[in-house]
Amino acid sequence: MRDVAVIGVGMIKWGERWESSLRDLFVEAALAALDDCGLDRVDALYVGSMSPGLFTGQEHIGALFADYLGLAHLPATRVESACASGGLAFRQAFLEVSSGLSEIVLAAGVEKMTDVDGAEATYVLSTAADQEYESFHGITFPGLYALIARDYMHRYGLTREQLAAVAIKNHAHGSHNPFAQFPRKIDLETVLNSPMVADPLRLMDCSPITDGAAAVVLCPLERARELGKKKPVKVLGSGQASDTMALHHREDFCYFRSTAEAAKRAFEMAKIERERVDFLEVHDCFTIAEICVLESLGFFERGKAGSAAQEGITALDGKLPVNPSGGLKSKGHPVGATGVAQIVELVHQLRGEAGERQVKGAKVGLAQNMGGTGASSVVHILEGC
Amino acid sequence: MRDVAVIGVGMIKWGERWESSLRDLFVEAALAALDDCGLDRVDALYVGSMSPGLFTGQEHIGALFADYLGLAHLPATRVESACASGGLAFRQAFLEVSSGLSEIVLAAGVEKMTDVDGAEATYVLSTAADQEYESFHGITFPGLYALIARDYMHRYGLTREQLAAVAIKNHAHGSHNPFAQFPRKIDLETVLNSPMVADPLRLMDCSPITDGAAAVVLCPLERARELGKKKPVKVLGSGQASDTMALHHREDFCYFRSTAEAAKRAFEMAKIERERVDFLEVHDCFTIAEICVLESLGFFERGKAGSAAQEGITALDGKLPVNPSGGLKSKGHPVGATGVAQIVELVHQLRGEAGERQVKGAKVGLAQNMGGTGASSVVHILEGC
Repeated sequence: MRDVAVIGVGMIKWGERWESSLRDLFVEAALAALDDCGLDRVDALYVGSMSPGLFTGQEHIGALFADYLGLAHLPATRVESACASGGLAFRQAFLEVSSGLSEIVLAAGVEKMTDVDGAEATYVLSTAADQEYESFHGITFPGLYALIARDYMHRYGLTREQLAAVAIKNHAHGSHNPFAQFPRKIDLETVLNSPMVADPLRLMDCSPITDGAAAVVLCPLERARELGKKKPVKVLGSGQASDTMALHHREDFCYFRSTAEAAKRAFEMAKIERERVDFLEVHDCFTIAEICVLESLGFFERGKAGSAAQEGITALDGKLPVNPSGGLKSKGHPVGATGVAQIVELVHQLRGEAGERQVKGAKVGLAQNMGGTGASSVVHILEGC
Repeated sequence: MRDVAVIGVGMIKWGERWESSLRDLFVEAALAALDDCGLDRVDALYVGSMSPGLFTGQEHIGALFADYLGLAHLPATRVESACASGGLAFRQAFLEVSSGLSEIVLAAGVEKMTDVDGAEATYVLSTAADQEYESFHGITFPGLYALIARDYMHRYGLTREQLAAVAIKNHAHGSHNPFAQFPRKIDLETVLNSPMVADPLRLMDCSPITDGAAAVVLCPLERARELGKKKPVKVLGSGQASDTMALHHREDFCYFRSTAEAAKRAFEMAKIERERVDFLEVHDCFTIAEICVLESLGFFERGKAGSAAQEGITALDGKLPVNPSGGLKSKGHPVGATGVAQIVELVHQLRGEAGERQVKGAKVGLAQNMGGTGASSVVHILEGC
């Protein structure tokens, strides 16, 4: 397997994009990524999307997108792993370049979630849980993560204020991200007074419903400087793993074993220790998720990440900045696009072009993307060249 | 890229499987494939499925299936390319082994289509066409393929009887396949008297709505004899391509350019000529599709495949047997499973264990799997060892 680099990234404004269709969102992000590296063709396309069928009545989006990008006849593959679909698209593109099968591959993620109303969107998202043993009985994702939050509070004494600190921190980061859906700071009062969704999770603990897309271009590392216009970013490691689908089958609600296994594989491939990682983009679909993920990734001991945001450890100027992009909470969470947008943020940071949200001296970054309540995870480690 | 072999195949009875859920179908096929090679573990899982979300309310099936197979924590990826999802799952599994990332990979395809009624199934299938320019206006797949059939008839003088001959031939083959949904012979009268669906296509020109799954196990060729129990089958070539999504954007209705491009790539990788291929499994979702595919693959000149079935050329004992399994027409068409089942048939034939439907002296077989009206195609060439 040969070394692979990211040479182009494309991000677009996320939010309620009623003027843009599913294919429009993809094309906008893909053209931005191609423009970023100065290329006008690729050899293959991977796209991650959770449920274009249920959200917009359109499956078969690999071929559709290749066509609308003006590149019909290209091999085009859609991958899906619920909210980890984007990370998976990046992984498969990495694999295709790494194997030697293709030279230049575009990986994109996209989701158009606001063509349906809120109740319908909640139903569509629930198809990422176990339909027969969870969703059928009426539980939705805020409810599932509320169970995790209650368990964590009970076991480790997590406070309501510590949960809120995750949202406050990520919105502070996102206030510097022009592509974010909600690029504004929030305070403790806003979080604590926001409507209750599923006790203890309030509206401000939840990532929003979002339309969006993101795209990146990969090529062999040895051709990165010849093909791209900007500083290449090397893919050091890639890991993927799954876990039991239904939460009630887990030994431990607060530890995402798929994340732990995916991180183990990514670090083995990267051949580096955790100390080398300067910052993280993680899957904060709910505030509690960021806390459990940081422990599952092995950056905090069990029960110790609950106070990390409150203590400033995971802030932009902290010891280990987490979600400098604003995370899913502030940037938005068009589910299939999220994993690719994490890679876009890693690349901006590792090129030193992240502006006011730049992590100082960032050389190595890690992205963790997760599906459902952690039934699937994808972890990537990238290094600036 | 290293050489890859198929060492295990699993097929199950297809039809209206009301007693089995989506996950049941997958597990039954996966266990059959594992049993066929005598293994009880794999390193990764790929599953092709077109729309488990719309058909059964369940996305995130990679992780779900790994869990229900008793292999939670495994990397598990779902791929989708409409009716070519199964072929794509096989291709991605081939890529993962070929790249050196994994040793033993399970590729499966599954679809559970009878949990919704016929009108709803027709809607779900229409999400494989261009939602904005085709499906929205009311056309469905029988209608789209009827346009192709009319064009072919007009240009090349194809007769109603020649179309029927494709269905009669495939049902004759399928009558020897115990896993087929409709394993019985039909005659010309049956086809010509069957209800009109979309002129000129009658019910007996259409593949059915089916529940089903299929699975195969891949490993490096050099380990195939050590890991498997039976004669390995080598993957000689793999090709994938796309075309414009909407039929009205094509220069030519009757020529599937994605199939032609995918075949070109597969033959380039295989480094063999078409003369070496002893039989084909192709995507006969409608009788007219088999005719156009045979020409797009380059086995017949343009306008010449229309009479192939009528003249016996593509029969089991003909010069180039096509769809010895019974094809989608007789075996059934659980859309995401079809591409993997084609590989299963190739392996049975190349091992010489296809019983009454055995192609005599079969050494090399080709499988062509297609999405929509050919907006995506996957072609594989396999050789017995």
